[in-house]
Amino acid sequence: MKILVINAGSSSLKYQLYDMRDESVLAKGLVERIGMDSSILTHKPTNKNEMTEVSEILEHTTAIRKVLNALTDKEHGVIGSIDEIDAVGHRVVHGGESFKESAVVTEEAKKEIRRLFDLAPLHNPPSMMGIKAAEVNMPNVPQVVVFDTAFHQTMPEKAYMYAIPRVLYNKYKVRRYGAHGTSHDFVSKEAAKFLGRPLEELKIITCHIGNGASITAVKGGVSVDTSMGMTPLEGLMMGTRSGDLDPAIVPYVMNKEELTVNEVNSMLNKHSGLLAISGVSSDMREITDGMEKGDPNSKLAFDMYTYRVRKYIGSYAAAMNGVDVIVFTAGVGENSVVLRQKVLEELTYLGVEIDESLNAIRSGEPRRISTEQSKVAVLVVPTNEELVIARDTFRLVQ
Amino acid sequence: MKILVINAGSSSLKYQLYDMRDESVLAKGLVERIGMDSSILTHKPTNKNEMTEVSEILEHTTAIRKVLNALTDKEHGVIGSIDEIDAVGHRVVHGGESFKESAVVTEEAKKEIRRLFDLAPLHNPPSMMGIKAAEVNMPNVPQVVVFDTAFHQTMPEKAYMYAIPRVLYNKYKVRRYGAHGTSHDFVSKEAAKFLGRPLEELKIITCHIGNGASITAVKGGVSVDTSMGMTPLEGLMMGTRSGDLDPAIVPYVMNKEELTVNEVNSMLNKHSGLLAISGVSSDMREITDGMEKGDPNSKLAFDMYTYRVRKYIGSYAAAMNGVDVIVFTAGVGENSVVLRQKVLEELTYLGVEIDESLNAIRSGEPRRISTEQSKVAVLVVPTNEELVIARDTFRLVQ
Repeated sequence: MKILVINAGSSSLKYQLYDMRDESVLAKGLVERIGMDSSILTHKPTNKNEMTEVSEILEHTTAIRKVLNALTDKEHGVIGSIDEIDAVGHRVVHGGESFKESAVVTEEAKKEIRRLFDLAPLHNPPSMMGIKAAEVNMPNVPQVVVFDTAFHQTMPEKAYMYAIPRVLYNKYKVRRYGAHGTSHDFVSKEAAKFLGRPLEELKIITCHIGNGASITAVKGGVSVDTSMGMTPLEGLMMGTRSGDLDPAIVPYVMNKEELTVNEVNSMLNKHSGLLAISGVSSDMREITDGMEKGDPNSKLAFDMYTYRVRKYIGSYAAAMNGVDVIVFTAGVGENSVVLRQKVLEELTYLGVEIDESLNAIRSGEPRRISTEQSKVAVLVVPTNEELVIARDTFRLVQ
Repeated sequence: MKILVINAGSSSLKYQLYDMRDESVLAKGLVERIGMDSSILTHKPTNKNEMTEVSEILEHTTAIRKVLNALTDKEHGVIGSIDEIDAVGHRVVHGGESFKESAVVTEEAKKEIRRLFDLAPLHNPPSMMGIKAAEVNMPNVPQVVVFDTAFHQTMPEKAYMYAIPRVLYNKYKVRRYGAHGTSHDFVSKEAAKFLGRPLEELKIITCHIGNGASITAVKGGVSVDTSMGMTPLEGLMMGTRSGDLDPAIVPYVMNKEELTVNEVNSMLNKHSGLLAISGVSSDMREITDGMEKGDPNSKLAFDMYTYRVRKYIGSYAAAMNGVDVIVFTAGVGENSVVLRQKVLEELTYLGVEIDESLNAIRSGEPRRISTEQSKVAVLVVPTNEELVIARDTFRLVQ
């Protein structure tokens, strides 16, 4: 069975084609600048030459047609015909309370995703464009939706409710949803597998640290708390997001700087985080470079960032009354040796003991970076959200 | 030396008169409903009969005159003449970055407190009214100001900076200040004294839990992090305050409910917290009563509240790489047996071991509620913010 995984943004569309017999990736690629006259398709077939095509792609339906053309291209293609694609799996950011797990796309499901536009106005509408575009191009192929929020639907009420008037939950479903669910789910399972221990017995803290970042407390295989909130703004400091903040600062700044609701959202989501403090970059590599060159602003950004990761680990250890495993994943979590070092070196009170030479190893495989004696196993586990989407799609259409 | 301690609110004024030879309270009392025609003075002299007087008190100068009359009253007074008062100590909520410790009131100091009105618009202006009123009534008596924020000025940059554009710090000094500083300072010192251990070597987490609530990480006697932020809204869930919240919820709710900046502030500060979730009360006693009667909303409020205290303890254990002592203080912290039980029972991973019978004891004295074997000493220490103000005033005017 071959499954096409699609992650549609407002002006971009990522894809991967999986052969589920061995979970191998046949091809992957990206359409950028959708809606402009010089859109770019970059197609990377496995074991064949990469292909780039610049053309006018005004909307997602055309984008998917281009992708299907590339997948079946004589020279760069990996399948003989579109008919070989058995199902399509779509990444959808927000599943609200309606979707506690992945689902086959039905009229009902689409209605529900549309109803959730309000909670994720930047993310869910492009997902819907991706779904429709896939339906137009492959009308008889089953579609599946996999949600970033679904894994966190197991959180108890005390973790997901905010201490604000109940009417806001009743009317608008204002509550904690979290994100990166497919990643937290995947790496926690991989961690248990790697350690050869039953997931049901483990208290795991998964640190998904990329440009966006979130931490999850996974107890017995289910999410019991997570740092992102109703939106991806809450929690850790991120590349351009503020993370946690005195909520009173929002109206204070709106008032002082005469900002609208949109402007303050934009400030907190796009002009804050590492970028705001370093004044240099939202990219952790540039921050650590700057710090090594003696830039005090980069150092402060790094210190704030790592301090907050450390505090969340402490917080979730308390939430679960202990921790057996800490997992680092995603771009920064998998690759930044200094970040992991800084976060972990002052967690000895938990029994964390890092092996500096193991931490320094770079690899694409799950690996342990704590010593044999460490009371808490610390792992680096490369995430693979596309594979989770492919697996869920496979399971649901069988 | 006799010192009058004053805590002035916008329509109230609390006072205590100390004899510093033995730090005894000669009298204390309260003026309520200042600005109305039926203001009430309640005067409680030690070892004499209480006195209540209803009259028109339109502003703070009159309120202090009434207090001085009561203190020197033939029947209810405790001093022969106003001249016996050697100094006045004032509680001021916000000292910004200007006041890292208590200070004698000078023209310069008053200018600075006025400059800080912007950061604490509800709290600093009444403090200034109290200072002026004392100056008018006792022109030759030295005045001292003691700040709620000063103890937290030792926090490192990584703990007090928010990950938002730097211009907001440069222009408006938007940063974490914390509050309840005199209380966290007092109970951490008392805890070390009680345990007979040097403060310099201890990692203490102080939980000041009253109607307002904050938690502080005290390392070697100094505050290294605290849960309240630029304003008292951040951090723990409180009686009527939301505490931590996805900052994106603020503009979301303003937009949905068409709220102004003032209205959303009022919602988050006065209509949230225990009150909003329980729908019953902002008072922890009524919440636990409701819970015991089986009310699910009271139970959720209690669960959220205690869960968040527990997570902050975990977070600050990580911030300090361990914890030696946990202290509970203030109204709820000193009196709620079930709250302490619930917060502590799932901290066994830290080595916390509670003695249920010790926890159940009610007393006005500092006491241990953990077992002898507990790796972390857990104490209940009654706070005494007025005494700290009296002591600081005494020290500064000597």
